[in-house]
Amino acid sequence: MRQLNNIKRGWPDAQIEVVVHGKALNLLVTGKSTQADAIKELQAKGVIFAACENTMKRAKVEKSQLLPGVPTVPMGIGEIVTKQEEGWSYIKF
Amino acid sequence: MRQLNNIKRGWPDAQIEVVVHGKALNLLVTGKSTQADAIKELQAKGVIFAACENTMKRAKVEKSQLLPGVPTVPMGIGEIVTKQEEGWSYIKF
Amino acid sequence: MRQLNNIKRGWPDAQIEVVVHGKALNLLVTGKSTQADAIKELQAKGVIFAACENTMKRAKVEKSQLLPGVPTVPMGIGEIVTKQEEGWSYIKF
Repeated sequence: MRQLNNIKRGWPDAQIEVVVHGKALNLLVTGKSTQADAIKELQAKGVIFAACENTMKRAKVEKSQLLPGVPTVPMGIGEIVTKQEEGWSYIKF
Repeated sequence: MRQLNNIKRGWPDAQIEVVVHGKALNLLVTGKSTQADAIKELQAKGVIFAACENTMKRAKVEKSQLLPGVPTVPMGIGEIVTKQEEGWSYIKF
Repeated sequence: MRQLNNIKRGWPDAQIEVVVHGKALNLLVTGKSTQADAIKELQAKGVIFAACENTMKRAKVEKSQLLPGVPTVPMGIGEIVTKQEEGWSYIKF
């Protein structure tokens, strides 16, 4: 979260999408996320946090359990590939 | 392996090459791999698993010890760079 | 370091920049780095090791504490994004 805030401070217009999949999913689950406030602030600055539907199925997490304003993508990894093909840069956290 | 299966299920025609180097090499070594069956299934779907020759030299692994159908590349990292230069997307596992 | 040496041995003309941020910063701090000799050798071969200024501020590390020949970049992650936009390939270590 600190790194995302750093980017937004340095580059206010940067488009950022954080694709959350695998073990990280709880980051986006209401009542389980330890970062809900930081995520809300980053969302207000335009950062998108997206949840992987494959991970959600496996973890039995419903869309209604996600934090407000969190869209889903069918495959987290597919989303990362697609974005790279569109010219987005990739950072692995 | 689950993630690779997810991609192939969502995108059956996706070209995937998994470059295995460093500590992960045993994944591709006969008798040491815990994923030999899953790898065989993914290979049947067209996924390429390639072993880094630099890592093999260091680990004293011969080509004959690799799982069936596993090609080698001279430098794992070099392969990743080359593929990106050819337009492939990169995912770090 | 071994991987960087492998690349330089295979591709002597490869341009390599290692962006060091977060927990890895001590790698570039005089008196704290366990890799100072290896870094010096790689620098002599043209590899650039760059330190993230955001990380430095947080860790209270001054430029004068960095190993010789280590430039800084304002944001480590910003540098990685910029380089990818310029066509550089990305490897996450």
